[in-house]
Amino acid sequence: MAEAARKADAINALQALLGERLSTSAAVREQHGRDESYHPAQAPDAVAFARSTEEVVAIVNICADHGVPLIPFGTGTSLEGHVAAVAGGVCVDLSGMDRILKVNAEDCDCVVQAGVTRKTLNEYLRDTGLFFPIDPGADASLGGMAATGASGTNAVRYGAMRENVLGLTVVLADGRVVRTSRRARKTSSGYDLTRLFVGSEGTLGIITEVAVRLYGIPEAISAATCGFPDVASAVNATILTIQSGLPVARIELIDAKSIAGINAYSKLDLVEQPTLFLEFHGTEDGVREQAERFGDIAAEFGGGGFDWATRPEDRNRLWEARHTAYYAALAMYPGKKGMPTDVCVPISRLAECIEQTQRDLVESGIDAPIIGHVGDGNFHTLLTFDPGDAEEVARCKAFNERLILRALAMDGTCTGEHGIGMGKMRFLDAEHGEAVGVMRAVKLALDPNNLMNPGKILRV
Amino acid sequence: MAEAARKADAINALQALLGERLSTSAAVREQHGRDESYHPAQAPDAVAFARSTEEVVAIVNICADHGVPLIPFGTGTSLEGHVAAVAGGVCVDLSGMDRILKVNAEDCDCVVQAGVTRKTLNEYLRDTGLFFPIDPGADASLGGMAATGASGTNAVRYGAMRENVLGLTVVLADGRVVRTSRRARKTSSGYDLTRLFVGSEGTLGIITEVAVRLYGIPEAISAATCGFPDVASAVNATILTIQSGLPVARIELIDAKSIAGINAYSKLDLVEQPTLFLEFHGTEDGVREQAERFGDIAAEFGGGGFDWATRPEDRNRLWEARHTAYYAALAMYPGKKGMPTDVCVPISRLAECIEQTQRDLVESGIDAPIIGHVGDGNFHTLLTFDPGDAEEVARCKAFNERLILRALAMDGTCTGEHGIGMGKMRFLDAEHGEAVGVMRAVKLALDPNNLMNPGKILRV
Repeated sequence: MAEAARKADAINALQALLGERLSTSAAVREQHGRDESYHPAQAPDAVAFARSTEEVVAIVNICADHGVPLIPFGTGTSLEGHVAAVAGGVCVDLSGMDRILKVNAEDCDCVVQAGVTRKTLNEYLRDTGLFFPIDPGADASLGGMAATGASGTNAVRYGAMRENVLGLTVVLADGRVVRTSRRARKTSSGYDLTRLFVGSEGTLGIITEVAVRLYGIPEAISAATCGFPDVASAVNATILTIQSGLPVARIELIDAKSIAGINAYSKLDLVEQPTLFLEFHGTEDGVREQAERFGDIAAEFGGGGFDWATRPEDRNRLWEARHTAYYAALAMYPGKKGMPTDVCVPISRLAECIEQTQRDLVESGIDAPIIGHVGDGNFHTLLTFDPGDAEEVARCKAFNERLILRALAMDGTCTGEHGIGMGKMRFLDAEHGEAVGVMRAVKLALDPNNLMNPGKILRV
Repeated sequence: MAEAARKADAINALQALLGERLSTSAAVREQHGRDESYHPAQAPDAVAFARSTEEVVAIVNICADHGVPLIPFGTGTSLEGHVAAVAGGVCVDLSGMDRILKVNAEDCDCVVQAGVTRKTLNEYLRDTGLFFPIDPGADASLGGMAATGASGTNAVRYGAMRENVLGLTVVLADGRVVRTSRRARKTSSGYDLTRLFVGSEGTLGIITEVAVRLYGIPEAISAATCGFPDVASAVNATILTIQSGLPVARIELIDAKSIAGINAYSKLDLVEQPTLFLEFHGTEDGVREQAERFGDIAAEFGGGGFDWATRPEDRNRLWEARHTAYYAALAMYPGKKGMPTDVCVPISRLAECIEQTQRDLVESGIDAPIIGHVGDGNFHTLLTFDPGDAEEVARCKAFNERLILRALAMDGTCTGEHGIGMGKMRFLDAEHGEAVGVMRAVKLALDPNNLMNPGKILRV
């Protein structure tokens, strides 16, 4: 059967299954083919709004029978074109799978449907004394965060999704449903399928449920900002903090330009200088001790006094400002599209990597803010351009490529937390060499017809 | 070609490659077909002593050309028959690959050849102020520990191998060499091959190099023992400790019988009662605070006063005794073989699981000590039997099966840290259901001829 006829048949079958929850409207399709990055929208042929794992199975079976690609969709907040329907097909929108299925407070874990967002989960947990720490800028869904291998500001202390997903329910390309792990904290029972699906970006299956670790809200939390004379000083203070084993919960670099953006976007009045946003978690005494030790380190590098945010509402305002830094930066360049870079290097190379990157920005005539989860060796520059300006686009892409090769030369990675999507596929070989062949073998073993989010991570 | 002729040809080719480092002596073969458990030795046809990744590649190529199985071997301290040559073949002994290749002190990581043991690494690190925390009882090789997904007493604070391996160099079934990851602390770049090979027990490839995280030796360390009136009280004190978020570095249950064994084997004079071995890591103030908080919890459950081991030599004696507890327990039953159980359950179910297990021991007429990494929900009973006594063997096996099904019913795992090997293959389906199909697909994709440690983890 011709492709168009197969697709039409599949869409008819899906309509019979889902009724109004199958949409082919141009607006809905367009919205589901685009994420928050510069990658051009590529609309799917239809959008299926799923409500349960069983429905996802039925959708997958229909699409598989008709050879139609499937693209899972959470909140659409990815940054490398993960949701673009490069070969058309059916977008499976999981945002309606928004139930929190079980909170096991006594084991500090919970199970949620894939569409639950991180903020919804934390609001739900408020009375339990527990929280879920992984916090990418966006209020992303847990399914999407697992699929992308997301992290955020707390990763330096609590790890990324990789360390915090306990198990997943996944619908495979052939409609089988697997649960990757049970709830024990530790296991040596067979291959680690949980970690195989974390970061697989929908290319191996569709995540429908996510079990994650939770943490007790620390007895004491204190947040502060600390200004530095230049980015290098802030980074060097960070490196020494990490190397000395100080268990900071958050340590984020915001350069002067980003501070300006944040001030405007979040109505704050921070001094426009390279700044670390910090948070310490622990007991009252422990937090005080950590802050004092960090203060000594900061002083060595010319760091100004702390500006404390002691009240919860001030703390929240600070971190909300940090989380919207991407949007704040975009807002400084009206009409432009964002291309956030995302390299991560061993912490010993971080100062050098950022310094070379700053020099490259100047030499390339690119005006871009730098922010970063510097405690992990991970930082972003936000490149912005006018999509109609081919020269500007090419200049930004060339800069990003140089940045990635610089990070790889330092034994780093092309993406610390955004994933490969379609935007970084060409760097996979440079980063992994022969290992890409192993990834491809795994992909083909689980999705022989390349129907699961095709055209992402690797070429088949 | 007939199997015997193919094997003979392969062995000739290996002899040409390795000279005296290829052994076919009965004693060497016998020793390499046996681990530390009850599983009967199954000797390989030959043992190849490799010195480099390149040599492992050459060995793998020769074996693959001749359709001969390959079994990697580190220190032979596995506990589920991992090294038994169930289909004959060539054992690749990696103990000669014992070089520490690089210590990146400023990034808290290092790269070692697979044959380096945990004690060798920590001795080497002594002057750097860093240490490697994963400590199974045996002085195992890091390659073996990665392959098994090992953990030990520090996992409650520092995680298991899964969390601490940064990257691996692996020789695949077709002789390709892959490096699974670079040195950045965080990455979202493609499938997580590192975690795929951690715990794969040689069935997907042979690990030849291991990069692991290191940690700064804490400013203050204090260890203590604390006695309890019964096992349930010790376990309940542990559960509350974990649930209250107290960051204990070690919290180990040793029952009265195990204490008797340890006293005899390690020449100690601990009171023969259920005891927790504890260790606190942190700053001077932090450690004091943790100990006080634990003291309050212990007192609630009738825990006796701490017996502190403040001097490093006393601390080392205590943990050395804990690490040799398996041998100490075996020594209590001369002439018997050991079948250590290894379930792990969510911590909220731990007291119940241990209580039912104690009752089952009594009802089964089995005399067995219980020890456990209780902070992780993981505990062992050491079943011992006379291999010639079929009734006793059957009784122990039936007990272990009931224990595993009990743990699975509590959403736990059949193995917290020992792995599947050949001993637990029949529980894989019960634990993972459909997910075993995914494991099998991955196995066949990477090792289509089933030459890499066949007969382990899963049937192909």
